[in-house]
Amino acid sequence: MAERHDAVEVIAAKRDRSELSDSQIDWVIDAYTRGAVADEQMSSLAMAILLNGMNRREITRWTTAMIESGERMDFSSLSRPTADKHSTGGVGDKITLPLAPLVAACGVAVPQLSGRGLGHTGGTLDKLESIPGWRADLSNEEMLRQLEDVGAVICAAGSGLAPADKKLYALRDVTGTVEAIPLIASSIMSKKIAEGTGALVLDVKVGSGAFMKDVDKARELAETMVALGTDAGVRTVALLTDMSTPLGLTAGNALEVRESVEVLAGGGPADVVELTLALASEMLAGAGITDLDPAEKLKDGSAMDAWKQMIRAQGGDPDAQLPTGRESTVVNAPRSGVLTRLDAMAVGLTAWRLGAGRARKEDPVQAGAGVQMHAKPGDTVTEGQPLLTLHSDDPERFERAMDGIEQGIEIQDEGTSYSPTPLVIDRVAASAE
Amino acid sequence: MAERHDAVEVIAAKRDRSELSDSQIDWVIDAYTRGAVADEQMSSLAMAILLNGMNRREITRWTTAMIESGERMDFSSLSRPTADKHSTGGVGDKITLPLAPLVAACGVAVPQLSGRGLGHTGGTLDKLESIPGWRADLSNEEMLRQLEDVGAVICAAGSGLAPADKKLYALRDVTGTVEAIPLIASSIMSKKIAEGTGALVLDVKVGSGAFMKDVDKARELAETMVALGTDAGVRTVALLTDMSTPLGLTAGNALEVRESVEVLAGGGPADVVELTLALASEMLAGAGITDLDPAEKLKDGSAMDAWKQMIRAQGGDPDAQLPTGRESTVVNAPRSGVLTRLDAMAVGLTAWRLGAGRARKEDPVQAGAGVQMHAKPGDTVTEGQPLLTLHSDDPERFERAMDGIEQGIEIQDEGTSYSPTPLVIDRVAASAE
Repeated sequence: MAERHDAVEVIAAKRDRSELSDSQIDWVIDAYTRGAVADEQMSSLAMAILLNGMNRREITRWTTAMIESGERMDFSSLSRPTADKHSTGGVGDKITLPLAPLVAACGVAVPQLSGRGLGHTGGTLDKLESIPGWRADLSNEEMLRQLEDVGAVICAAGSGLAPADKKLYALRDVTGTVEAIPLIASSIMSKKIAEGTGALVLDVKVGSGAFMKDVDKARELAETMVALGTDAGVRTVALLTDMSTPLGLTAGNALEVRESVEVLAGGGPADVVELTLALASEMLAGAGITDLDPAEKLKDGSAMDAWKQMIRAQGGDPDAQLPTGRESTVVNAPRSGVLTRLDAMAVGLTAWRLGAGRARKEDPVQAGAGVQMHAKPGDTVTEGQPLLTLHSDDPERFERAMDGIEQGIEIQDEGTSYSPTPLVIDRVAASAE
Repeated sequence: MAERHDAVEVIAAKRDRSELSDSQIDWVIDAYTRGAVADEQMSSLAMAILLNGMNRREITRWTTAMIESGERMDFSSLSRPTADKHSTGGVGDKITLPLAPLVAACGVAVPQLSGRGLGHTGGTLDKLESIPGWRADLSNEEMLRQLEDVGAVICAAGSGLAPADKKLYALRDVTGTVEAIPLIASSIMSKKIAEGTGALVLDVKVGSGAFMKDVDKARELAETMVALGTDAGVRTVALLTDMSTPLGLTAGNALEVRESVEVLAGGGPADVVELTLALASEMLAGAGITDLDPAEKLKDGSAMDAWKQMIRAQGGDPDAQLPTGRESTVVNAPRSGVLTRLDAMAVGLTAWRLGAGRARKEDPVQAGAGVQMHAKPGDTVTEGQPLLTLHSDDPERFERAMDGIEQGIEIQDEGTSYSPTPLVIDRVAASAE
């Protein structure tokens, strides 16, 4: 039987900068999941962890305790290796959509279990739900069958995985304790480890449109998560990638599906293609496949075939017309020159205000709302040319949506040299590698 | 109208080491009192305050906001000046009992509004409730009349004073956030300032039996409270006093009343008399009376008269027999020599286990339970002589009550020199003085 502790003792230990013992961590996670530790006690502990930190042993134990609060999945019966990807989220980040079928087309099963979090645009599930008929909820059996038959599944995570995390995540959201690296890392990794993937690639975003604005913090988070995955026997690698400007030329649910399909058809914006291929290579390497160039699978149409199968398997019609916002308006370039900045946060906020994202969990999102970009940093623009097209079902949203967007746009004299941030800033692998 | 804020914004500001604005503080205290800020948000903020601190402006504003969450009392109609005392609490601390009637006998009104907190022994109200008939609950009118007629009242604080503090105090108790000096100081001072006393003396205890184990922390708390009182126009002074050994020779409810009556009769233990007089002198000085020696009022019986009037005014019989625990047992000196340590915490824990204190707010206390001490540090003792007598209604409590008491007792060879800690360690007054 587990040792008895009490909440104040555990809180006081972390408050006073002690290490929490394994037994304290096991007890507090279990007691919180059962309701024996109250929300006001857990939030006080979360703030103490945020300010005083946890070491690697504590974070590993915390993650394990969260995994053990629920069920674990098992993909060992599949005939193919498994690999998954997690992104910390950014504006225009639709990479999961082309990536999952692409990797599946290379012979690796991709079990992509997603949440529905808050964000500038909806989550991956919201994007896919703009496809008529597509459904996010699958039973474990349906998921396993689809992984075996199609090789890729993007669906809602069942409530059985890491219920402690589910409860803690909702609490952190309202108590100013989201920003704790040990808690972010254990939240992400508890779900991915419980999910049972063999390999995992983390896309840790850095920049104005990302949760982590600062590369050192992003690296710390990446290193913590790679260590957690490695300790749990998951082959884990992280890429630090730029999120100072949106990914691709769209931010919005149906808009991003359309752009993803362009990539699967062998076209699409260069940055989306580049990141999709970089992450696909890491997933394949994690699954032990090093002799395949994923770019070939975009060219030969097999990634597109996998996409259509994946959408159909979940009730969607991959050839159906996607919804568009009923109204649109255009933001023009205020002068001629070189576009040197198109700020991710500003575009994200605009998309959110157009109705593409939600403020509260229970809010609906507009499938057709969002922002289309007609130029990206480095492009030459002419005064009066369209820079952005905004889409929404509610034209009364336009004015507020555009509020402040001009501060996110910078155009300098023609001839100004522009050096873009590299898209992939760094790669973090287990220290033994 | 007050500016709108939200809880996460205020929490994040303190988490990130910003100063809270006046408007943020006013908003968060008001919203918490109304229930618009949830317990789990306030506890997270309390932990951030505990770890990141508040400056003098923030603490002053926080205290003011707590005062403004409720009603204020007004003693300006009284014909005498007012002075009050607050002790941070210690083992055997019955000083309020002789002090209030003594100061009243000197012509100063003492409005002593008490809570019923948790402790080794009951609070002041629990002690007085061991007197048959005495009642703690008075209306504001009864209190004012008694202050005018008798000059001293010790009663339960109404729920109208600083309701924000009441709610916050209960929250801090279960969330590991009691130990924050800004929150301790504002909790104590909001009630004393709302109560409307003209002068205030703080008895800040230091040592094993006190909340503050460390003199530097105690001084910081004293300085913070003196500044808060002074800023609010209350003439405030603090004494830092020793709590490494119990005050007097008793720890327990009726036992302490009996000892207090001995002091009022002109006798009693030297340390209780010394501290009562030291605090009385400070209260008189705060009330503008400097030409009176309170020791005279103990000698001439007028303090005892005031005590009897005060007890009678609240329904008690000052001449009634006080309850005694039904059973008793004795702890003998394990050897001969000089008693060099009788630890306050160890004695307090023993009294608490005998039934003199409570573990939860709703628990009853035993009026007759407690510890009588037959020697104090510095005394010479002989092997086998009684050191302590334990009293309780439940003899089955004795074994557990004595557990560990021997670690609190130290007897050294006869002739060992013993230098006692001074009872009054330091005095803290407003920096302008």
